[in-house]
Amino acid sequence: MQSTTTVEEAIRNRRSVRRYQADSIPLDRLTRLVELGVWAPSGGNAQTWRFVIVTRPEIIRALHAVAPGMLSIPPAVIAICQDKKLAFQRGGKLGQECTSVMDAAMAAQNIMLAAFAHGLGTCPILSFHSEAVARILGLPEGIEAELLIAIGKPAEQPVPPTRTVGDVLFINQYGDTNGKQ
Amino acid sequence: MQSTTTVEEAIRNRRSVRRYQADSIPLDRLTRLVELGVWAPSGGNAQTWRFVIVTRPEIIRALHAVAPGMLSIPPAVIAICQDKKLAFQRGGKLGQECTSVMDAAMAAQNIMLAAFAHGLGTCPILSFHSEAVARILGLPEGIEAELLIAIGKPAEQPVPPTRTVGDVLFINQYGDTNGKQ
Repeated sequence: MQSTTTVEEAIRNRRSVRRYQADSIPLDRLTRLVELGVWAPSGGNAQTWRFVIVTRPEIIRALHAVAPGMLSIPPAVIAICQDKKLAFQRGGKLGQECTSVMDAAMAAQNIMLAAFAHGLGTCPILSFHSEAVARILGLPEGIEAELLIAIGKPAEQPVPPTRTVGDVLFINQYGDTNGKQ
Repeated sequence: MQSTTTVEEAIRNRRSVRRYQADSIPLDRLTRLVELGVWAPSGGNAQTWRFVIVTRPEIIRALHAVAPGMLSIPPAVIAICQDKKLAFQRGGKLGQECTSVMDAAMAAQNIMLAAFAHGLGTCPILSFHSEAVARILGLPEGIEAELLIAIGKPAEQPVPPTRTVGDVLFINQYGDTNGKQ
């Protein structure tokens, strides 16, 4: 199923949704989101990301118990992980410590925008106990969860926090808001 | 100007573009991209990102000289920075070291998808000398460049690297590709 939602509509209207309807999300829909996630760029085309789609309620409850950032129990979770050993092999220290984190985040943004376009709410979660998540998902040594994305049909319509670029955008030099070229 | 490019079209067709036409990119177009960047989620709504749009050729050349990841001279660069002190105040150690990096990457993905929808090529660059970039852009202490985005009209049509989720997607447990629920 294709959505006609434009890029800008998705970017402007996606909200972090933290309360979900109980309806389960079909696995093929979740797989499709991951397929769009891997079209994100990766540093040096390393593609060292690994994804675990979680739909089993007992595993989601276990994740919830070790993830303070997960405020309710979603019907599905996508854990975006990185093979940190492979990231080191392919990108050295920068790849292991920085690029792999950014790659995971860019893939996450693809997934969250695409989910929005299909009527699904998402919330990125970074606050979790890393070793506990690794144990729950059976991650081998060297594979680390970078972030969790909670996914479900929205049960709330959050008001967006204000955004403005007035104070955070500079032209050519930090502090210069004039932009005289 | 609104683009009708859908989310999925942008996700699937965006490429990292490393060679650009010489045409300058209007400042209002670049500002618009940053405005879309800040609609990315930020951990705890911290919004500690800072953006420097660079259009002055001598500054771009200076960045190029300290950024091995920048393979040619683009007509514009957006430097996505983070106020690391503020990130610590708002999100502690996790905020400073991890969340702020992810926030920058998600904002970058918004910017790159939106740029694609407007016919612009982009390339995210993480390989640069951080202190030199700080000096060139006049970043105060505590403000760090997380990544640079080179931007311009594409002068190449790169072939996309193969993507497949077959080897990187698991269901419920790492290593389980079956997805029996």
